[in-house]
Amino acid sequence: MEIVIIGTGNTATVLGRKLKAAGHKILQVYGRDTAAASALAYELGTESTNYWNVVNKSAELYILAVSDIAIGEIMTELRLPDKTVVHTAASVSKHILKGATASYGVFYPLQSLKKEIGYLPDIPIIIDASDEKTLHLLDNLAYSISDKVIEAGDEQRAKLHLAAVFCNNFVNHLYALTEDYCKKEGLDFYMLLPLITETAARLQDVPPASSQTGPAVRGDQSTIEKHLALLEKHPEMKTVYEALTDSIIRHR
Amino acid sequence: MEIVIIGTGNTATVLGRKLKAAGHKILQVYGRDTAAASALAYELGTESTNYWNVVNKSAELYILAVSDIAIGEIMTELRLPDKTVVHTAASVSKHILKGATASYGVFYPLQSLKKEIGYLPDIPIIIDASDEKTLHLLDNLAYSISDKVIEAGDEQRAKLHLAAVFCNNFVNHLYALTEDYCKKEGLDFYMLLPLITETAARLQDVPPASSQTGPAVRGDQSTIEKHLALLEKHPEMKTVYEALTDSIIRHR
Repeated sequence: MEIVIIGTGNTATVLGRKLKAAGHKILQVYGRDTAAASALAYELGTESTNYWNVVNKSAELYILAVSDIAIGEIMTELRLPDKTVVHTAASVSKHILKGATASYGVFYPLQSLKKEIGYLPDIPIIIDASDEKTLHLLDNLAYSISDKVIEAGDEQRAKLHLAAVFCNNFVNHLYALTEDYCKKEGLDFYMLLPLITETAARLQDVPPASSQTGPAVRGDQSTIEKHLALLEKHPEMKTVYEALTDSIIRHR
Repeated sequence: MEIVIIGTGNTATVLGRKLKAAGHKILQVYGRDTAAASALAYELGTESTNYWNVVNKSAELYILAVSDIAIGEIMTELRLPDKTVVHTAASVSKHILKGATASYGVFYPLQSLKKEIGYLPDIPIIIDASDEKTLHLLDNLAYSISDKVIEAGDEQRAKLHLAAVFCNNFVNHLYALTEDYCKKEGLDFYMLLPLITETAARLQDVPPASSQTGPAVRGDQSTIEKHLALLEKHPEMKTVYEALTDSIIRHR
């Protein structure tokens, strides 16, 4: 498929790499940041522009991989009446694209994308479209880069994003709090990596509710008290410890 | 090394497998639960007993892999004056073993061990000992089954355990809440596995504080409000969402 990528951030970059690796042709990269646009275009073997009026008009698909707010701003300039345009945002309705184009949709990667990471992760794709033909086109495109593809409307996509906040943003914050604690207490955070890896890997075999361990689920009040005493010097962690311990106890 | 394993739970089983796989000889398994003891003994190619007075007295090392409370109970029966005894507990002082034996220590696996899991995970080992000679012996034993070994006293071990509670128990609880939410909302939890795997795998390359993403760290109040509205039907998750969102915002 011949594609124009609009945006130069993490999503634009990693999706661009995935699409190129799957044999699609990136016709052009558009970005307001000239340096970022030319760097990404170079990496994807194409050209860049930072002027909207010279965006290549012959592509089959235009991927708007920009921030939620920028989607609205670009929509005021977008004139591609006979083309297909998708955005990549979890929390923005597909209908924001209505009017500026014939057919439109959403191509949402359910993954934390960082351009600095050297490898290409597995990326489940959540698709949605204005019509059956566009849905079919997005379905084919998604399956060309992923084996996990589902169709979901605005509301289901928002719910999947909320689920992703728990499994990525919140989990990563627990890692960050722990790393901070380890630094302050002279412990080696990297001793915890096998445990972290195992906690995630086990989900392939065992549902998380069955593998809950630790003092809270055991009702081991004595260990909980010891931990709270150790956290007196770390009030930020203590608040989180109490909230999650309470939640585990209520959830038993 | 010739070893007697006392206990038949997850730690006894997985440590026993690791030790056997590394070429150590398990002389005997002691367990109050006859069936569990004979099952583990059979798996480890040895015999079992459920009577304390027939525990084999010729081993070099006795590993007490039992619950925190059971360590105290077994100590009242333990008579191995010229032997080395270790426990495997995070939150119990090594000195609980003093008096019943010549040399003692701790052999704490910093990993979530479940006997149902078919593979043997990497297990960092935290060791502590009553004297230099015992420390040396435990160091050799630990390195025979792990490439991550550190010495840490009672207090540092308790702190590592607290760190493990954040990275395993709390993280797993977030997974469990999310799986529950997905079931109730008709979403496929397994669509999130690549994201979960990536969040953990990335720690090898990027410190967690640098890869924090999501509405809270962006200060994206509009998305946070949408999420809180979606969580009206899920008060348990809403409480956790608020606590962790506040923590991320304060931590920025």
